[in-house]
Amino acid sequence: MPQDSALAYVRHGQSPFFRLPVSVGVVPAGTRAVLLGVPFDLGTTYQPGARLAPWHVRRVSALVQPYHPIHRVDVFGEVPAVDGGNVAFPPFHPPAMREAVEVEIASIAAAGAVPFVLGGDHSVTLPVLRALAKARGPLAVVHVDAHLDTSGPEVWGEPFHHGTPFRHALEEGLVAKGALFQVGIRGPFGSAGDAELSARHGSRIVPVEEIDDRGAAAVGAELRRSIGARPAYVSFDVDALDPAFAPGTGTPVPGGLTTREAFALLRALAGVELAGMDAVEVCPALDAADRTAALAAHLLFEGLALLAAR
Amino acid sequence: MPQDSALAYVRHGQSPFFRLPVSVGVVPAGTRAVLLGVPFDLGTTYQPGARLAPWHVRRVSALVQPYHPIHRVDVFGEVPAVDGGNVAFPPFHPPAMREAVEVEIASIAAAGAVPFVLGGDHSVTLPVLRALAKARGPLAVVHVDAHLDTSGPEVWGEPFHHGTPFRHALEEGLVAKGALFQVGIRGPFGSAGDAELSARHGSRIVPVEEIDDRGAAAVGAELRRSIGARPAYVSFDVDALDPAFAPGTGTPVPGGLTTREAFALLRALAGVELAGMDAVEVCPALDAADRTAALAAHLLFEGLALLAAR
Amino acid sequence: MPQDSALAYVRHGQSPFFRLPVSVGVVPAGTRAVLLGVPFDLGTTYQPGARLAPWHVRRVSALVQPYHPIHRVDVFGEVPAVDGGNVAFPPFHPPAMREAVEVEIASIAAAGAVPFVLGGDHSVTLPVLRALAKARGPLAVVHVDAHLDTSGPEVWGEPFHHGTPFRHALEEGLVAKGALFQVGIRGPFGSAGDAELSARHGSRIVPVEEIDDRGAAAVGAELRRSIGARPAYVSFDVDALDPAFAPGTGTPVPGGLTTREAFALLRALAGVELAGMDAVEVCPALDAADRTAALAAHLLFEGLALLAAR
Amino acid sequence: MPQDSALAYVRHGQSPFFRLPVSVGVVPAGTRAVLLGVPFDLGTTYQPGARLAPWHVRRVSALVQPYHPIHRVDVFGEVPAVDGGNVAFPPFHPPAMREAVEVEIASIAAAGAVPFVLGGDHSVTLPVLRALAKARGPLAVVHVDAHLDTSGPEVWGEPFHHGTPFRHALEEGLVAKGALFQVGIRGPFGSAGDAELSARHGSRIVPVEEIDDRGAAAVGAELRRSIGARPAYVSFDVDALDPAFAPGTGTPVPGGLTTREAFALLRALAGVELAGMDAVEVCPALDAADRTAALAAHLLFEGLALLAAR
Amino acid sequence: MPQDSALAYVRHGQSPFFRLPVSVGVVPAGTRAVLLGVPFDLGTTYQPGARLAPWHVRRVSALVQPYHPIHRVDVFGEVPAVDGGNVAFPPFHPPAMREAVEVEIASIAAAGAVPFVLGGDHSVTLPVLRALAKARGPLAVVHVDAHLDTSGPEVWGEPFHHGTPFRHALEEGLVAKGALFQVGIRGPFGSAGDAELSARHGSRIVPVEEIDDRGAAAVGAELRRSIGARPAYVSFDVDALDPAFAPGTGTPVPGGLTTREAFALLRALAGVELAGMDAVEVCPALDAADRTAALAAHLLFEGLALLAAR
Amino acid sequence: MPQDSALAYVRHGQSPFFRLPVSVGVVPAGTRAVLLGVPFDLGTTYQPGARLAPWHVRRVSALVQPYHPIHRVDVFGEVPAVDGGNVAFPPFHPPAMREAVEVEIASIAAAGAVPFVLGGDHSVTLPVLRALAKARGPLAVVHVDAHLDTSGPEVWGEPFHHGTPFRHALEEGLVAKGALFQVGIRGPFGSAGDAELSARHGSRIVPVEEIDDRGAAAVGAELRRSIGARPAYVSFDVDALDPAFAPGTGTPVPGGLTTREAFALLRALAGVELAGMDAVEVCPALDAADRTAALAAHLLFEGLALLAAR
Repeated sequence: MPQDSALAYVRHGQSPFFRLPVSVGVVPAGTRAVLLGVPFDLGTTYQPGARLAPWHVRRVSALVQPYHPIHRVDVFGEVPAVDGGNVAFPPFHPPAMREAVEVEIASIAAAGAVPFVLGGDHSVTLPVLRALAKARGPLAVVHVDAHLDTSGPEVWGEPFHHGTPFRHALEEGLVAKGALFQVGIRGPFGSAGDAELSARHGSRIVPVEEIDDRGAAAVGAELRRSIGARPAYVSFDVDALDPAFAPGTGTPVPGGLTTREAFALLRALAGVELAGMDAVEVCPALDAADRTAALAAHLLFEGLALLAAR
Repeated sequence: MPQDSALAYVRHGQSPFFRLPVSVGVVPAGTRAVLLGVPFDLGTTYQPGARLAPWHVRRVSALVQPYHPIHRVDVFGEVPAVDGGNVAFPPFHPPAMREAVEVEIASIAAAGAVPFVLGGDHSVTLPVLRALAKARGPLAVVHVDAHLDTSGPEVWGEPFHHGTPFRHALEEGLVAKGALFQVGIRGPFGSAGDAELSARHGSRIVPVEEIDDRGAAAVGAELRRSIGARPAYVSFDVDALDPAFAPGTGTPVPGGLTTREAFALLRALAGVELAGMDAVEVCPALDAADRTAALAAHLLFEGLALLAAR
Repeated sequence: MPQDSALAYVRHGQSPFFRLPVSVGVVPAGTRAVLLGVPFDLGTTYQPGARLAPWHVRRVSALVQPYHPIHRVDVFGEVPAVDGGNVAFPPFHPPAMREAVEVEIASIAAAGAVPFVLGGDHSVTLPVLRALAKARGPLAVVHVDAHLDTSGPEVWGEPFHHGTPFRHALEEGLVAKGALFQVGIRGPFGSAGDAELSARHGSRIVPVEEIDDRGAAAVGAELRRSIGARPAYVSFDVDALDPAFAPGTGTPVPGGLTTREAFALLRALAGVELAGMDAVEVCPALDAADRTAALAAHLLFEGLALLAAR
Repeated sequence: MPQDSALAYVRHGQSPFFRLPVSVGVVPAGTRAVLLGVPFDLGTTYQPGARLAPWHVRRVSALVQPYHPIHRVDVFGEVPAVDGGNVAFPPFHPPAMREAVEVEIASIAAAGAVPFVLGGDHSVTLPVLRALAKARGPLAVVHVDAHLDTSGPEVWGEPFHHGTPFRHALEEGLVAKGALFQVGIRGPFGSAGDAELSARHGSRIVPVEEIDDRGAAAVGAELRRSIGARPAYVSFDVDALDPAFAPGTGTPVPGGLTTREAFALLRALAGVELAGMDAVEVCPALDAADRTAALAAHLLFEGLALLAAR
Repeated sequence: MPQDSALAYVRHGQSPFFRLPVSVGVVPAGTRAVLLGVPFDLGTTYQPGARLAPWHVRRVSALVQPYHPIHRVDVFGEVPAVDGGNVAFPPFHPPAMREAVEVEIASIAAAGAVPFVLGGDHSVTLPVLRALAKARGPLAVVHVDAHLDTSGPEVWGEPFHHGTPFRHALEEGLVAKGALFQVGIRGPFGSAGDAELSARHGSRIVPVEEIDDRGAAAVGAELRRSIGARPAYVSFDVDALDPAFAPGTGTPVPGGLTTREAFALLRALAGVELAGMDAVEVCPALDAADRTAALAAHLLFEGLALLAAR
Repeated sequence: MPQDSALAYVRHGQSPFFRLPVSVGVVPAGTRAVLLGVPFDLGTTYQPGARLAPWHVRRVSALVQPYHPIHRVDVFGEVPAVDGGNVAFPPFHPPAMREAVEVEIASIAAAGAVPFVLGGDHSVTLPVLRALAKARGPLAVVHVDAHLDTSGPEVWGEPFHHGTPFRHALEEGLVAKGALFQVGIRGPFGSAGDAELSARHGSRIVPVEEIDDRGAAAVGAELRRSIGARPAYVSFDVDALDPAFAPGTGTPVPGGLTTREAFALLRALAGVELAGMDAVEVCPALDAADRTAALAAHLLFEGLALLAAR
């Protein structure tokens, strides 16, 4: 299941994730990773548009090469992977999205493969976590983001949107006790109580100021130790990065991670048992020269490399 | 109730529509027009973002001067007007939007004023029409658009979105018999039957090719005659214009109207009894140098001038 | 061979031209049209970048609906079509591009299908014409462009680039006597002799000023009559349009066609026996909100509709 | 004094206007036209930035070829021309700009050459007119613009800015009686009296609606007749064009001229005795893919062609 | 005086700074901070446009939440604040701007409130300092900038522009002895003598290279100690940041601060007696996805938090 | 040979590199540095456009001041320099570019001056190295880049393009033994063997991760020591920087250097005997507000400062 060569890729005219074979709805035997798009942004509170990210990230992911020089591994050689297409669902019905995503992820997990999801807004993460927690038990979750995403329904009169996935994940027991790690948090809060839910569940919050003090690699190493042998999920909101590095996102917050910190954090997780990953909140209409789309492709590649390096 | 002078406008620091006085939720006595924003885009099928239009259109509308040299009238001198703020509603709940808009428009109509609505996507038009038809009976509707917007629920599994307002308007009897005028229609259809509903209701469809043949002023004059004394509503989707003139919109179709044709069409309606107007589908994230936002402001100004010129 | 439904298209995650089935290197029996990309821009004299157009035009072509309301025909119902992928060739070797394109087009023609080519720069047209003229004899050619593209090697020290395809086509006898129609020509010439080659071959040059005088439909009708029963090829350089309508192109010239004129011109060719078509010189890096890419998709659709309408 | 060849132009590394020889402060014997930049925008009322236009217009003017196919003349063959550099002056002192421009233009006129000025905002036109009127007597002035530019000091508390040059030109007697032609005027006025000054001086105002009715060529021909044998000045504000065609300008007004109308208007002036010309209000920060800068270069070329065609 | 709730803010349709109450020209009793815009850019030496910043920064400041998680304080709960509108003045007359700003700031200071000024170019700072120094005596000034802004009149032939405010502030005695702190300075100088004036007045210059060595927090802590009990003013030119973080500014210099360093620097000033603050040189026409406007809003919020945290 | 003053520069209307005198094809006596453009991008594998960089970098380089405050030297005072124009060659013929560049550089070296080359893509570096190695013997080369640029002909079927210059440089013996320093390398490789050629030649590869660990200044100091007395060449591909800092480049890779690291690296080379320098891969069509063009100008200035500081 090798990656297409450059000319073969050009010839085909299509842009699957990382030039991988396409297999929609069927996980071929031996597959270790399935890349999925979820074109959904009805959960957005400010600038929408992330629904169009899967097409753009596929397009630019074609430029990502297969060998990871830090982990020293040929990622797609080690990790047979497919582009599983997008999850499709009747638009205008968020519950239908959640159900379709959960079903799709469940079937990938059942086939023994690891899902890599490209959103869409952050509300696509909840059904992924539901399916994986059902399959593998409560998960360790590394949540990289500018925001805590643990709002309650009182904020916008609705329990399910891109500001709430981790509230539900905690309350539904999808996350193992004390195993939510929220990294990159910053910016003004609505109130002093914003972090309360996370705190009550024993989550570890790493504000960006702590990255300043300790470095991303050290923080990643700590997380690696805390996760231990638990199956782990990485949920990466590109607004964790500073808008300079990830301009194409709907609720940017100045003062974020650099791309090098993002990579260092993920690389420090090496050895973890990765149960799944997402990269969300890429908004192509606000992007500049595909910068954010390319970043999302590289983030997913770093996740695939964790699988390959294990 | 004069428009602010330039320095007074600068001093205040705010950008009400056309530098008008702001009066939220209350229609001051003597007011003939109320400008309203409806920041909603959950009805979008392709690129969303129109929810942010009201802030941008207000900002650039400050540059529109008050005297209309074609109708020869001082628009805001003739038409006391206020910025009525935005309609607010719990986000994520399209029915709540429809209800809130209908209530707001009803109260404006009850106060004897004419509503001018800046969307938002085209699904905001339905509740406006409902309220006005309740208040004044079935309306003549001049619908300027690239699309017919008469889709049925079979297309996206949902009856209410930005591709359906005129289906509902026709089926709910909000439009007077044979008094829907759809101008600017173009581009490939889904099927031969797309125009069937409009045809069945005796609507007059003016494809852009007819504008080529007869000119926008002649078409407008015909519409003016057909409308007669009926109260008329103008619903202007900025994608009626070619994307060269209105790049900031979510479902652009090449081959559209020019700005001069749009103005000529509206000016030819002079004398009509205007019951209300909207300008919708301005998507700031896709706009260029505020071109589409400024266009929307000028379209609303043309509508206000119809009121003033009568 | 129906177009994908919207959900099926979303599900698949890929963006073939017009959501068509993909068939690379094989023309399925019964196919009447093959869409091809040619990602080549080494023939560019000013701003390059057209090599990336095939991916962008595919992406946005997914929004084009199948029914043509002017010709009143379900285009993809009438014309079974496939996305034939891109022509691939060793980069950095323009002769290899010309050879690969000629071979590919020859095999499509041999299968009885009509090729629709999305460039790339205008130098991709020459090998297409070579293959088609071999298969069908000298062609009538409708060449829509701001430029004559008949430069000689003295201009840039090289006989083959995007300013020369029609010189070669004329000199190699690929065009039937007096059957080159060059429409949209404008802008300063290098010298009085620029149009000499075209004149000597009896070509019909329609400068944009003639469109002003007579209208695009009348010009198209004249061309239709002149072409008669000859197999005809349409070569459409998007810089024929004014930069307002087609900003994403490498050698723009102000004063060009409108999108409506472009469509009217093509529609007036109805009844012609279309042997092939191209749309070239789309440069995504200079485009705005996909305007030019969408235009190119619509131009190809108009060509497909000519096939369907016959 | 031939234009540089392409390779020679590339070699030199600089971008004089139209690849012309540079001669700063000295008009070589035999020169018929001098191109000048005036990098000034302190007269701007809304979005400034036109001060940077000379560098951008020079850069893109290098692509304009020398032969004019409508007038059938080798423009730079007929009209020996130089790039005279920019007028330089202590910034922050508008009166210093006016004085420096007047001196420079006077010396060009004294040398028997015709000045072609690239602004800068429209306030650079007044000193040009002063110098030319001194040299040649009151002028006929073709003023193409969205705005009348005849404001008085009461509007912004200052008599000299980009909204006032034609007030001063009229009041100072720089324009021959009844020989101000204002073309492209449109958009809301501040009041009914806005056109009063122009009317009182017998100016001919051609609103854009008249272009709709009669066509730009017919209007141009009328102007040509009215001008007769008087020396004529053309002042072209790029906001005369619709923002679709000229997005890079600081006070855009929707509903403007097309590029073809602009060219047709200028070409219809053939035979006029051109005393000078300017193209102003190009704002590079708002431009898109150099569209407006290229337009300005072509407008100046049309003016040079009038000289050549005479 | 609480911040508006999200729905109330949407409803109102306006965008005051941080959704605060608007009070133009009157400082309500109990107010501790007044936010002001100064739409002025006639002092710009390169790319102008900062005059339009107040409208954009207001718009995006609406997204800033009220609770500061580092200082652990509800900023607007602690600091009753109003949007005081913009300072208005006859345009084209820089001295009128300076007078109007000084009067406005004096009246805010007289009311016991702290002014937070959003420019405008850097020349708006001088009258602010004049008013505050009159009210409170010579100030400590933290000046964060890429440039020293101490040019003399010999550079541009004018003593007052955006490159000179700190020359005047030093020479007029507005700054306490040795209490000017210039942070973020970098890039080539005009000559070795550029820093002489600052040196002669005992100013502390922190080039960006020192931030590299010591970190922004350490530098901030040193400044905090040096300031002691003196009333302090913070003048923040957004070009102190690298253009990657603050692209929307007129005289960018590569090699600047990161957003995190900017925040760390300001937070380290906690405990200082803040007499006033400005954020200047935001140029919306050059901005990308509102990145620089949002940054300016956050900088002002950090200043407000210093007030709240004291 | 002083830099133009600001007004003199404005007056001239042209934008030579750093406002220097222009001397094309002749190195004036006493010249120590010649700035050259090479407008070539036929060696590009992904997004082309670098051919247009020389005009943009010249334009923005005019803003760079002459005094270097870290090296404490008046750069152009110490280093008499000229703008040598662009290397010109028949386009479409890469070997002609290589020959012309080599000849030009040879003649500069023969005149005792140091060439500073602004590309164009990275394939312009090979002929520069060839000429310099012929003149001065094998060089130490500091190669700052995201990529190794040592591909073989098997990758794209062509030995000479922008991914191969350092393969040829090593194989042709242009680099002194063990004296290739490749800094900023990152991102996925095609295979584990990508770095083999560099390793075999004893090159020192500094991946960006090492910059994280040791800092750019320390790495630069190590390089300085390793270079010793050998003549050194600096080849700076702007994609060494993160796309946040250098968006205008054709093959960006996230995770790159900051502008401050780039400057620190170069400054640490002080004392080196600089034989030449290039800055390549600036692609204006992808740039944002001239950010990357300005960066390239500053990189060249840092190189000139090394010459001045020696």
